Amino acid sequence: MSILALLAAALRDDQIRTDPEALEAYSHDDAEWAPYRPPLAVVFAETLDDVVATVTAARDTATPIVPRGAGSGLSGGANGVDGSIVLSLERMTGITEVNVDERYAIAQAGVVNDVLRQHVAQHGLWYPPDPASQSIATIGGNVATNAGGICCVKYGVTTDYVIGLTVVLADGRVARLGRTTAKGVTGYDLTSLVVGSEGTLAIVVDATLSLLPLAGREERAIVGYFDDLVAAGRAVAAVASDGIVPSALELIDRTCIDAVNAWQDLGIPSTASAMLMAKVDETGETGQRLAARVAACFEAAGATGVERADDPDEVDRLILARRLAYPSLERLGPVLTEDICVPRTRVPEMLARIEGIAATWDVTIANIAHAGDGNLHPLIIVPDGDDAAKERAKRAFDEIVDGCRDLGGTVTGEHGVGLLKLPGARAEQGETVQDMQRAIKRALDPQGILNPGKAIPA
Amino acid sequence: MSILALLAAALRDDQIRTDPEALEAYSHDDAEWAPYRPPLAVVFAETLDDVVATVTAARDTATPIVPRGAGSGLSGGANGVDGSIVLSLERMTGITEVNVDERYAIAQAGVVNDVLRQHVAQHGLWYPPDPASQSIATIGGNVATNAGGICCVKYGVTTDYVIGLTVVLADGRVARLGRTTAKGVTGYDLTSLVVGSEGTLAIVVDATLSLLPLAGREERAIVGYFDDLVAAGRAVAAVASDGIVPSALELIDRTCIDAVNAWQDLGIPSTASAMLMAKVDETGETGQRLAARVAACFEAAGATGVERADDPDEVDRLILARRLAYPSLERLGPVLTEDICVPRTRVPEMLARIEGIAATWDVTIANIAHAGDGNLHPLIIVPDGDDAAKERAKRAFDEIVDGCRDLGGTVTGEHGVGLLKLPGARAEQGETVQDMQRAIKRALDPQGILNPGKAIPA
Repeated sequence: MSILALLAAALRDDQIRTDPEALEAYSHDDAEWAPYRPPLAVVFAETLDDVVATVTAARDTATPIVPRGAGSGLSGGANGVDGSIVLSLERMTGITEVNVDERYAIAQAGVVNDVLRQHVAQHGLWYPPDPASQSIATIGGNVATNAGGICCVKYGVTTDYVIGLTVVLADGRVARLGRTTAKGVTGYDLTSLVVGSEGTLAIVVDATLSLLPLAGREERAIVGYFDDLVAAGRAVAAVASDGIVPSALELIDRTCIDAVNAWQDLGIPSTASAMLMAKVDETGETGQRLAARVAACFEAAGATGVERADDPDEVDRLILARRLAYPSLERLGPVLTEDICVPRTRVPEMLARIEGIAATWDVTIANIAHAGDGNLHPLIIVPDGDDAAKERAKRAFDEIVDGCRDLGGTVTGEHGVGLLKLPGARAEQGETVQDMQRAIKRALDPQGILNPGKAIPA
Repeated sequence: MSILALLAAALRDDQIRTDPEALEAYSHDDAEWAPYRPPLAVVFAETLDDVVATVTAARDTATPIVPRGAGSGLSGGANGVDGSIVLSLERMTGITEVNVDERYAIAQAGVVNDVLRQHVAQHGLWYPPDPASQSIATIGGNVATNAGGICCVKYGVTTDYVIGLTVVLADGRVARLGRTTAKGVTGYDLTSLVVGSEGTLAIVVDATLSLLPLAGREERAIVGYFDDLVAAGRAVAAVASDGIVPSALELIDRTCIDAVNAWQDLGIPSTASAMLMAKVDETGETGQRLAARVAACFEAAGATGVERADDPDEVDRLILARRLAYPSLERLGPVLTEDICVPRTRVPEMLARIEGIAATWDVTIANIAHAGDGNLHPLIIVPDGDDAAKERAKRAFDEIVDGCRDLGGTVTGEHGVGLLKLPGARAEQGETVQDMQRAIKRALDPQGILNPGKAIPA
């Protein structure tokens, strides 16, 4: 039987789409310019059994499966390949358990990050990972890419919260990985191995996520304006050297500031070349003192202005520019999003390199950065329909990746390798690590049907 | 050539010992009653090249290698097997980098946990993982077992701090895993896969460890005495329900208290059936308020007495009983150390079961627990030379493991599977997870020479 016949036998009609609109819509994620091909069909799993049936059918017909959450990925990890089935988990939206005493929740792959956060908040609990796409991205996708976010600088990334997974293996078997207890070291850490593997080792059906208490934090914001990026970089280094771990330390550059100012008046000085937005979340006097120390670091590094807030609305207002930066830039044209991570102290140097690369290739590059982590998102903006500029943008993209490696960085801080970072991953990892990855891939997916061609260099 | 001839050609004489004293001393770790056999030789590696040479020789002669740090493991993970080479990393004691701005250190496998902590403290940095064996255990062993400790309840375990590893693979090649940057998601998380794999996938030669600032914490201790274990269990649950994350929450039971009181006078009421020792480490008023809330939880749960301290010496004095509990018990006879983890709310129930098991098998069982994590260490004590009691102790050990599984727990919270927990791991994991583990083991060590027979059920 063909894969489509097998799927039709196992699933309802409304769980399978083969119309051209669906095939196009589900053929790629949000990565601009990563290659993609329309799949044979899109399958909408609603239960664990649906996933098992789909993988079993794929196994029996040697059909590639591309798992997919919201399609908000930025590296092409969910892009269709020839002859593939795109397996959407977006209908699996159950939060099947919230355990207050043990502080964990079990969420199916299709639960949107924000929905989970709001749900557990009702139980006095907090799920920290906060990728920018949190209002649309799913937990399954967050797990697949090991998503980061703004609060990582203090609270870590997705993998730091995943203590268990239900997965379907390439042979169709179901494996329950990890635990629900606070600690546990029984056997290999297969949970962490699957997190960040971008659907190439197993299909994530649900995740057991450890949570923190919601209470006990008071957010304060500290914003600094700088005449040049180097001064802002000095401020970032000063915060680290002072032993402060802020709960956010974000940077936007002049291009972002101009784009934001061109759209909305948030009162950002038009002369500023860089803006740093920090948060601390310790309570009471401790929080006040920390906020004052961050402000002092900004001032000592040469900030031309520093603002502070401890009222929640004021905090939101002060850091609104961070949220608006990306949509402001998208108004200028298609955006090719970079994602590199360099040592914190090399942030100014990397920003200077990016400036040089923008000049060399005559492209506009804006910078949004999780500066406190050294995780930079240079955003290459190209006028719509300008193919020559698009070509130059690709060259700039590659040079940024090379530059980050020169400075001791890693080619992807939080978006994943997908397709876009395969050459960078190859350069970064060396042959032995690649051999290890390929050996593990072959061990768990001998047919190579799970999201082939993604995440690890062939 | 034989393995011994190959080793003799590659290493200095004083790096190889084959005398009976060495073979006996290096044939087992601290796990009472786990099976062991003397190795063919003990090799003392001093450099990465020495490890490569040893593994290469083992590969070419299909000789099992048992890597070993301080030998302070409690599951038999470092026990010799027939015809093996024990590869000691204890001479590799270099701390090759401390990066203050990026907050990481690179430590060779033989660095003692406490030595690392003291070294990075001089740079204003803190390495949290604090296994009870911290004064003797090595970083390599901590990584191999994914060691826990007292501060895990707030600060996590070893794997939460390991961001990179240099390892030697079974074929003798060197792999550099992970990163030095704050974030990074390039490829599979091989670092986390190796952490906790007990030397069965690769030999850890050095570890890149992320660190926290040393400053910014003020320790306060809260101690509660209870008439019965159930009341102490209620206090643990109350702390969790109140949304408090203490930096320590330890329990010792009446057997421990009696053993401590029989040895030293710390002023512990002889009527107490259980003692809870909590720490919080928030600064200033926030810390004071939290300490008061913990004390209130203890009182509401029925503590017969509560003591508090915020002076560092007083804090140490109050929790001294925790440190003395284990050596106090060792004075009573050989100790078989259990290590299970149950849901926090099931701690009283598990303690009651353990009491029943002790009665059934007529053995003394003391309980030391990382209560805040649900991680219990029932310590089975047998009079020296009493073989019948030893046999009963083994039965009690197995029943405790079964009991923890009944309550939704995991068979090892922080000591590792080694040899002692192989049956428990088999029961806990199910066939699919075991198949995944075996597939990965075969993929990375096709000859099966790296610490064969440990960590994963055959």
